[in-house]
Amino acid sequence: MAHIVEISDADDPRVDDFRDLSRADRRPDRPGGRGLVIAEGVVVVERLLASPYPVRALFGVRRRIEELAEATAALDVPAYVADAGVMASVVGFHLNRGVLAVADRAPVIEPAELIGRSRRLAVLEGIGDHENLGALFRNAAALGIDGVLLGAGCSDPLYRRSVRVSMGHVLRVPFAHLTSWPEDLKLLRDNGFRIAALTPRADSKSLRDAELDRGSVAVLLGSEGPGLTDEAIEAAEVAVRIPMVSGVDSLNVATAGAITFHAMIGA
Amino acid sequence: MAHIVEISDADDPRVDDFRDLSRADRRPDRPGGRGLVIAEGVVVVERLLASPYPVRALFGVRRRIEELAEATAALDVPAYVADAGVMASVVGFHLNRGVLAVADRAPVIEPAELIGRSRRLAVLEGIGDHENLGALFRNAAALGIDGVLLGAGCSDPLYRRSVRVSMGHVLRVPFAHLTSWPEDLKLLRDNGFRIAALTPRADSKSLRDAELDRGSVAVLLGSEGPGLTDEAIEAAEVAVRIPMVSGVDSLNVATAGAITFHAMIGA
Repeated sequence: MAHIVEISDADDPRVDDFRDLSRADRRPDRPGGRGLVIAEGVVVVERLLASPYPVRALFGVRRRIEELAEATAALDVPAYVADAGVMASVVGFHLNRGVLAVADRAPVIEPAELIGRSRRLAVLEGIGDHENLGALFRNAAALGIDGVLLGAGCSDPLYRRSVRVSMGHVLRVPFAHLTSWPEDLKLLRDNGFRIAALTPRADSKSLRDAELDRGSVAVLLGSEGPGLTDEAIEAAEVAVRIPMVSGVDSLNVATAGAITFHAMIGA
Repeated sequence: MAHIVEISDADDPRVDDFRDLSRADRRPDRPGGRGLVIAEGVVVVERLLASPYPVRALFGVRRRIEELAEATAALDVPAYVADAGVMASVVGFHLNRGVLAVADRAPVIEPAELIGRSRRLAVLEGIGDHENLGALFRNAAALGIDGVLLGAGCSDPLYRRSVRVSMGHVLRVPFAHLTSWPEDLKLLRDNGFRIAALTPRADSKSLRDAELDRGSVAVLLGSEGPGLTDEAIEAAEVAVRIPMVSGVDSLNVATAGAITFHAMIGA
């Protein structure tokens, strides 16, 4: 199992992967940044352990590391144990959940590969908010979406806050990046997907009538404020809307996504 | 219109309604607490102004108070203007949105009255989390729910954080308290409502097959962890579930509510 290493000095370089997380969190994936994947709390750490991301180390208070004994049984990495005060000094803030794990990134999945093995996909445009992105992955996981394609303007799903809000589901739901946007949507059409754009436009079809529960379907979701770009909507076969009361702000995008994902579940 | 009063001293007693909000927020409705309704930001303040809650005063930086000139045109209350520093000293934290309004509570609505004039209702049990409660009201407003009935164990929807997360929709969507729980659910049955309990129980009906878009329907929603109590589920005519992937945490209750509210929209 993970081998326990006691850490009593917050400056110990062995826990550098966990140092100053709120700062590193700003740009984990930028050149010069480390781009490590951070999981917080027992449940999310367990999901990281079950994911393709190669775990480098754990860091936690003794009780939480012990709770993870079974999940780390086959793992040959250090489990650094410290008290809550030392942990807070290393991490840079008080950590409610008492345990972290860190992993390297895994090789990215090619869009064509993900599309080829999927039947229900979410395609995101302009989702820059890490909490919305995380919540979308959580909802996608719960409602059986096979994968997520990230179009223009999306944030990094492996950012610490997205991982946390997703409850670790960004580590389970496969995703791929579409680099030519929206041209790459043709990959979906070439694979027999019907593309539905979620938009409040008046000429869009009510979600209930769009029959998204049949065949291979990809749904395009844009950010709450500006919504999908015209280019994205035009690249879709059908525009669909959730009937909403006028004068009310639109739903949060992760909530709108959940309603749509539910409509995509086969009868 | 609201009459402008300049405030340059953070100790000025005229802004006592707005003092130390993060502290007062803990128990706004308890004996000894003031139980005032607080709206933050231009959009939510506008909703408060349009609500039945009698506004006592506004407090903001000049630019925000001016943005509200039209909405406050008919109002005979003070609009206290201060710079951001004085506001922060009064309120107890930096206020991103630059304007607040405070109102007294309005008389509560009786459940029978709310039920009598509604066709689609949400009934909540054990929703103690203010953010979930606020998000439920936002989703209820967007998806045309006529009102909310609060059963046992629910927090106060007029708590500051709920008001904010709801984007002010707790001020628009009427709610009432059911004091005998779950006995008061008979009020719904007496008024011809079908009561549907949302629960992951295996013997529950898929939401799609439950025909919640017909007739008068009340949906019971419980909190994410424990869910609805057995008593609440037994008081319902039908148990419905959102089909979810096993091994995934349940959806957030406000998200599950949104999916259900969407299913309640008449075809």
